[in-house]
Amino acid sequence: MPRNPEQLRALVEGYLDELVLTPELGTLAEPMRHALGGKRVRPVLCLATGDAIGAPVENLLPAAAAIELVHSFSLVHDDLPALDDDRERRGAPSVWAQFGEAGAVLAGDALLAEAFRLALSYGTSAVARELVEATLAMIGGQWLDISGTGELDELHRLKTGALFSASIGCALAAAEVPSAEQQPWREFAAELGLLFQIVDDILDGDGYVEDMGPDGARRLADEAAERAQVRLGEIDADTDVLSGIVSDLASRTV
Amino acid sequence: MPRNPEQLRALVEGYLDELVLTPELGTLAEPMRHALGGKRVRPVLCLATGDAIGAPVENLLPAAAAIELVHSFSLVHDDLPALDDDRERRGAPSVWAQFGEAGAVLAGDALLAEAFRLALSYGTSAVARELVEATLAMIGGQWLDISGTGELDELHRLKTGALFSASIGCALAAAEVPSAEQQPWREFAAELGLLFQIVDDILDGDGYVEDMGPDGARRLADEAAERAQVRLGEIDADTDVLSGIVSDLASRTV
Repeated sequence: MPRNPEQLRALVEGYLDELVLTPELGTLAEPMRHALGGKRVRPVLCLATGDAIGAPVENLLPAAAAIELVHSFSLVHDDLPALDDDRERRGAPSVWAQFGEAGAVLAGDALLAEAFRLALSYGTSAVARELVEATLAMIGGQWLDISGTGELDELHRLKTGALFSASIGCALAAAEVPSAEQQPWREFAAELGLLFQIVDDILDGDGYVEDMGPDGARRLADEAAERAQVRLGEIDADTDVLSGIVSDLASRTV
Repeated sequence: MPRNPEQLRALVEGYLDELVLTPELGTLAEPMRHALGGKRVRPVLCLATGDAIGAPVENLLPAAAAIELVHSFSLVHDDLPALDDDRERRGAPSVWAQFGEAGAVLAGDALLAEAFRLALSYGTSAVARELVEATLAMIGGQWLDISGTGELDELHRLKTGALFSASIGCALAAAEVPSAEQQPWREFAAELGLLFQIVDDILDGDGYVEDMGPDGARRLADEAAERAQVRLGEIDADTDVLSGIVSDLASRTV
């Protein structure tokens, strides 16, 4: 019987709490751990995908944690004064505000490298390849955002969608699901990433809301959620928990 | 017959010139390519190791380039105002001075991720594992340097030695040399990394020169070079070119 999101989140928290960072990083572990707050949306999605396939969820934990580390890396660097200049993150000082800019640059670098170390703990290198491609897309998206040259859809696909898709892609890779069977999962992942970003924009009042107003953005979100559910229904796996995650993402208020 | 360092350097330059970066990075490719100057010491060492073992040197090129990208990533971030605040690098503006700090943060991130992508192009994940461990050590070394808490030997081992060793370690991994046969190579690599850093300090007048004066540092360098040559002599491979590289590194003036 698949675990519910709360149970999966508890597994992720436990794994991250006990994660042994590379000893040579020394006291840099402090800003790194500070960076690792968050709702665990992506790692829970990774574990829920593994669970739906019937893969032992414990085997998915390094991949799930790797995705969360990449996500955290991106936030630490994005918050820097030269980028988004955010002094706060999740109601606490951002990493640079608390530990200085140098610490934030290096803690971000180290989170990214640790993520690859975790992804490389599998027998297959497919998990790490999935993660590196998403990371590159995400960096490209952040650059588009900063240089202000991208279309909104493209920007979101890169900046948010790629790592969202990788949450599912890494689960498929870790569970060694053959490429030929991955397509419906990937279509689901793309819709889910879009949904997440539209709801983000609704909550922040920017992006799609600026483009099409709050009602238009809400309609877009509902349509993406509907398509995600349809995709999910086409997949031959125990997808009830994932279906619940779609509903939660569509109606979330934080 | 093993190629000489100039021939190997030309191979690296050609490979880097033609390297196709991830398309999603878009115009971020410009600061990334700007960052990729340099003497190619590490990739040449990687190729020379492969050549000495008798591995097809072309197969070593992605690993050699990956090491150079990690090296470049570290310089781009180290040059940032919050870290070493260097406006110049190799007689040209550093990446942040030319492209802004945001561009330098993201170009560094992208160089690191591209390095892993290259390292993951091998059938074995051993190359990427070698690279990620060296990267983590290097970041730890940079953090020690900035926070000013480390011993000089430990600092150098992490900040410079680890990636130097990985230049050789990645060649062994790419050529699939069994772990049991790698030990003499790794001892050679450690001496070479130390040699490189001592000579760096002699040229910059800091580090070991501050600790033991110019003559003391010179003696230390000569002893490291001597030990590196002895280690090399114990290895059953065609190491003449590598022996020449040791001599060149010991007597370099830039």
